[in-house]
Amino acid sequence: MTDAPADLAERLATMPPAPERAFASDNAAGAHPAVMDALVAANEGHALAYGSDRWTAEAEDRFRQLFGAGTQSFLVWNGSGANVMALATMVQQADCVVCSDWAHIAVDEAGAPERALGAKLLTLPTPDGKLRPEQLRSLAHLQGVQHHAQPGVVSLTQSTELGTLYTPDEVAALCDTAHDMGMLVHLDGARIANATAALGGSVATLRSFTIDAGVDVVSFGASKAGMAFGEAVVYLDASLASRAKYVRKGVNQLASKMRFVAAQFNALLHDDLWIRLAEGSNGTTAQLHAATADIPGLQFSADPQVNSVYVSLPEWAIKPLQDWCFFWDWDVSKHQVRWMTAWDTSPTDVQRFADGVRHLLA
Amino acid sequence: MTDAPADLAERLATMPPAPERAFASDNAAGAHPAVMDALVAANEGHALAYGSDRWTAEAEDRFRQLFGAGTQSFLVWNGSGANVMALATMVQQADCVVCSDWAHIAVDEAGAPERALGAKLLTLPTPDGKLRPEQLRSLAHLQGVQHHAQPGVVSLTQSTELGTLYTPDEVAALCDTAHDMGMLVHLDGARIANATAALGGSVATLRSFTIDAGVDVVSFGASKAGMAFGEAVVYLDASLASRAKYVRKGVNQLASKMRFVAAQFNALLHDDLWIRLAEGSNGTTAQLHAATADIPGLQFSADPQVNSVYVSLPEWAIKPLQDWCFFWDWDVSKHQVRWMTAWDTSPTDVQRFADGVRHLLA
Amino acid sequence: MTDAPADLAERLATMPPAPERAFASDNAAGAHPAVMDALVAANEGHALAYGSDRWTAEAEDRFRQLFGAGTQSFLVWNGSGANVMALATMVQQADCVVCSDWAHIAVDEAGAPERALGAKLLTLPTPDGKLRPEQLRSLAHLQGVQHHAQPGVVSLTQSTELGTLYTPDEVAALCDTAHDMGMLVHLDGARIANATAALGGSVATLRSFTIDAGVDVVSFGASKAGMAFGEAVVYLDASLASRAKYVRKGVNQLASKMRFVAAQFNALLHDDLWIRLAEGSNGTTAQLHAATADIPGLQFSADPQVNSVYVSLPEWAIKPLQDWCFFWDWDVSKHQVRWMTAWDTSPTDVQRFADGVRHLLA
Amino acid sequence: MTDAPADLAERLATMPPAPERAFASDNAAGAHPAVMDALVAANEGHALAYGSDRWTAEAEDRFRQLFGAGTQSFLVWNGSGANVMALATMVQQADCVVCSDWAHIAVDEAGAPERALGAKLLTLPTPDGKLRPEQLRSLAHLQGVQHHAQPGVVSLTQSTELGTLYTPDEVAALCDTAHDMGMLVHLDGARIANATAALGGSVATLRSFTIDAGVDVVSFGASKAGMAFGEAVVYLDASLASRAKYVRKGVNQLASKMRFVAAQFNALLHDDLWIRLAEGSNGTTAQLHAATADIPGLQFSADPQVNSVYVSLPEWAIKPLQDWCFFWDWDVSKHQVRWMTAWDTSPTDVQRFADGVRHLLA
Repeated sequence: MTDAPADLAERLATMPPAPERAFASDNAAGAHPAVMDALVAANEGHALAYGSDRWTAEAEDRFRQLFGAGTQSFLVWNGSGANVMALATMVQQADCVVCSDWAHIAVDEAGAPERALGAKLLTLPTPDGKLRPEQLRSLAHLQGVQHHAQPGVVSLTQSTELGTLYTPDEVAALCDTAHDMGMLVHLDGARIANATAALGGSVATLRSFTIDAGVDVVSFGASKAGMAFGEAVVYLDASLASRAKYVRKGVNQLASKMRFVAAQFNALLHDDLWIRLAEGSNGTTAQLHAATADIPGLQFSADPQVNSVYVSLPEWAIKPLQDWCFFWDWDVSKHQVRWMTAWDTSPTDVQRFADGVRHLLA
Repeated sequence: MTDAPADLAERLATMPPAPERAFASDNAAGAHPAVMDALVAANEGHALAYGSDRWTAEAEDRFRQLFGAGTQSFLVWNGSGANVMALATMVQQADCVVCSDWAHIAVDEAGAPERALGAKLLTLPTPDGKLRPEQLRSLAHLQGVQHHAQPGVVSLTQSTELGTLYTPDEVAALCDTAHDMGMLVHLDGARIANATAALGGSVATLRSFTIDAGVDVVSFGASKAGMAFGEAVVYLDASLASRAKYVRKGVNQLASKMRFVAAQFNALLHDDLWIRLAEGSNGTTAQLHAATADIPGLQFSADPQVNSVYVSLPEWAIKPLQDWCFFWDWDVSKHQVRWMTAWDTSPTDVQRFADGVRHLLA
Repeated sequence: MTDAPADLAERLATMPPAPERAFASDNAAGAHPAVMDALVAANEGHALAYGSDRWTAEAEDRFRQLFGAGTQSFLVWNGSGANVMALATMVQQADCVVCSDWAHIAVDEAGAPERALGAKLLTLPTPDGKLRPEQLRSLAHLQGVQHHAQPGVVSLTQSTELGTLYTPDEVAALCDTAHDMGMLVHLDGARIANATAALGGSVATLRSFTIDAGVDVVSFGASKAGMAFGEAVVYLDASLASRAKYVRKGVNQLASKMRFVAAQFNALLHDDLWIRLAEGSNGTTAQLHAATADIPGLQFSADPQVNSVYVSLPEWAIKPLQDWCFFWDWDVSKHQVRWMTAWDTSPTDVQRFADGVRHLLA
Repeated sequence: MTDAPADLAERLATMPPAPERAFASDNAAGAHPAVMDALVAANEGHALAYGSDRWTAEAEDRFRQLFGAGTQSFLVWNGSGANVMALATMVQQADCVVCSDWAHIAVDEAGAPERALGAKLLTLPTPDGKLRPEQLRSLAHLQGVQHHAQPGVVSLTQSTELGTLYTPDEVAALCDTAHDMGMLVHLDGARIANATAALGGSVATLRSFTIDAGVDVVSFGASKAGMAFGEAVVYLDASLASRAKYVRKGVNQLASKMRFVAAQFNALLHDDLWIRLAEGSNGTTAQLHAATADIPGLQFSADPQVNSVYVSLPEWAIKPLQDWCFFWDWDVSKHQVRWMTAWDTSPTDVQRFADGVRHLLA
């Protein structure tokens, strides 16, 4: 299985045409046309800076419609910024933030949370990227002891960094445990659209694993969902937002010409476009999995739940395939790679990709 | 002079038509059409995220053309982010950052530098927003003494927060003094375009007060100069950039879809568009000053050097004028306001504004 | 006056005997014998670490007797540590700490507050080291504006870094203003003993400018008052202490063998020894001022209020006097030095010092 | 085995006399008489503060004799402070500190390193408290990637938090790997005396696992080794000390009356007293293990290497024994406790303790 076929050179020379779009990441895609049109349309005349504009007012309205009238949203530049801002408004002095050892905040933000918060991230082992209530309970012995940073905030990622999902009940159980222990709950929703699409595809779905489940603050991802840039921090418990506007500035997340973030949100949130686009990327990943599952030499870690699959390939096949149509390595020790689709990945892209993989491996 | 005229009600009822664009700020303007076109054109297909795209490569090239082949640039979201990133890569442990008491980093960034750097800002009094070499030299007694944060970086703003300018010689003198004392020099160029336009209007001008003068790192402003968003940190001493890419991420300034920042820069830096636009805003401010200088009751603090003037008005006139065409208060104790023009402010806007002020006051 | 006398060499050769103790600082003195005896007596057998010992319980009792049953104290290593710990428990996210431009926290702690808090210190000009209520009120325009760090805590020093004193009414007025503006008040009491002695000399005096005046948290200085080391953070508003024990550890101020701090406090606070010792140092400074006030060439900045005087000398006299009996320069541009007495400075020390100064100058 | 004996009440009623000293911790002991005498002797007259005194000069000399003429030491208050100060001078911007998941800096300092450094601690799993070179090498994939905090410093603890020891060769291998990867090595020597005693008992031993092995900076513990308080940060690579004095102040570790720290060190380091005392505490733990190893119901996790053993007891026996002679729980899920001896634990203490345990359990 791990040996290259004798006719490898011939197979490579006769690869079918590559897909138009590669399978690197959902952030390799641009913005949806409706989003880009809205951004362009907002470039009209003068508007007061820093959020005192009509586009931002509309976006804040739209977020209240999504999550409830008592919630409060703040537009920001990017996902790391959203996470850091959210956490900075949630921690108390000497708190630590509890999260999965796969959490983006722990692994992929170059220490931004520790820098901005001056607080520890306490990572817990999660083979599937998901925290469990009993893991939180195991931290009780830290509470009240002066030598230990105090577990004050739990940060979940939905969908997770491993492409898995919490059910609404699982989120609720974590929130209940956390709140019982005096902790707050943050949800990193860099791919909240994919989670919403996968779990039901409606605003009610969104609410089921956020505000209804007891989450306190959400980082609402939009760059991966079809915007050019921009995310939001949404305070489901608005009482936590009292310092938010100052903290947003203090972590460099206040846009001067905020209308260009807001206008994109107004298009993306209109008529649930964000959910429809995520259904698309989830769907093309499912299609890709189905179209390749039987190819000899591929080992999928699990069936995809959202818009990524993790698959081990024969080592000799990885580089040639990446050269033909790029995707990222995931765990080189296992010859495992990640294939990810975006809102604009087409069925044709998927079919071509599957054809190419089959051509090389079968 | 401070009493309202007897016929105030009639004057207000007969105000001429307001300008299309107000005089609030240069960040109230949108993006220049060429910039917006470039942003839209970049929304084509997939491109690897985080700067591994051809637009970013081109922007980095353009910055090397501006400042020299040995320099190195990093694209970021916004001005506060640029400043914090730059300073974070310049300070040593226990350093403080020396700046004017008017500096944006000290006054208008909600403590972002202290948060991200964990370092003190040491503000020096500057009635005109400009530091002097002797002020730096007066800090020598702090150096080497274990009780004091060590002056390690000087941050200048060009043009300053008060609309004044350093001459290239003045910047060079500050750099020489700083370097003699073992300090580095940062230049906050939120309005570096206006400074370049005012001091000569060429790339050579830009170099005269930056790399030629000895500045080490520049925050290169673009939002106020005609972009929708985006700035750059430029290391004129590229040896200071060794940690820059990690720090950019660590202060939440790494854009995933970076092409949308880069494409704008490629348009703005093309054919010196950024300088031409700044000449425009400088020019309309000069026109505004000329058209209003003789109106009784107005007291200008100084002739404008770039794109803002600071003027005291009779107290009764301020609110009606703001309601008619908005601008910001500056120093309410002196009934002083700021009139600022943008890249798209038109001569007609200025004429209408001057007409309205004259109508009310003369 | 600034010329050296013709017979300088002879005067120097015939200087009277130097005092046993110099006039450098109150922290040049050791510990009072009663304090040292208590420290030694505490070195008996085993005692649980980190404050679970009987000496610490007693010290906490003594602080409740000083400030009131509802207050709460925490023993720490040193004054900078006490200040940083106190402030860290007082600030909210994005707050700044308002203080005098002479404040120890701003000038003499090597940036420790900014490092530990990630927060800005906003310094206000105070020629006599004392803040005024109107200075606080002038900060109201910063409040509620997202661009500015929010004034959240005022830190006063009593007695000040310039040897001046707030009256209880002055402290109360600052507290009232601060509280009206939603700010908390910290008092840096590095020399709280000297202030107490100067303002009345009783526990009631202490209360008059602290808890009765509305101060929220006190750094209670003891090293300068007769201990070998050790200070305390006292929460007059105990509701602010909820995170204090964790923060104490988190700013490296938790002593493992805490009994050695506590035992010293138990001796120092017994029978108002701390006040009696401060009366001594205040008194020897007053004696020194009286004994030298008429010496030609000396210019005192003001009458001493506590245990230091600031005096300008002819430049030629400074170095020889320092070589004879050391004291520190204060403002070299004015040939100004500081003479400071300690709890153990004797009248004989003062008389010898005055004789020497007179011998050289008169 | 887990059931209490039928005659438990009688056994409890007839417990032999408890030891004079309990087995809680080495920081429950006071100071050695020679150390306390030195502290008292230093309380003589005035001495300039902040280290400009003869006791500090002598202590610095003694550390150069220990580690070599090119090294540089700084006296501080406590172990957490020593660690934070050392690490703050070792990290570069955006670095993380790599350590064991048992490391004191990660578990027991209430987030002090993250607060003071604004940097991440990257914990690696170590069942025996010891890092391995291959664990460092596994971090190579993080290096150079902008999304990740950069592994810049490794922090080892010797002896470890689990009472285990690195051999000099093991330390050297870690240092070689770290240096090859561009990382620096910190050694948390809170119990460096016990390690020295266990590995050979001479200054040469100390050097073998520190400077000879390639360690860059050491936190040299003394509180647990026989002092009342005080530790030191020793720069074996003195080039790393350029910012040390400012950082010491900036993390609140600069003692004003430093002679009281220094004098203790001068006694402790004299004639290798620190090693002799650690031989004592190591020896009494070995004696305790030998005297109890055959008692039914006890399960030792391993033979003791320094001055602590970890032992599982029948659950019913723990509380009565703690009430009789206190020691701390270690892992309640395994009914495991820690018995630790101090420099002053006597053979009689050990014998009495072993007798009591046998009386209750056998």
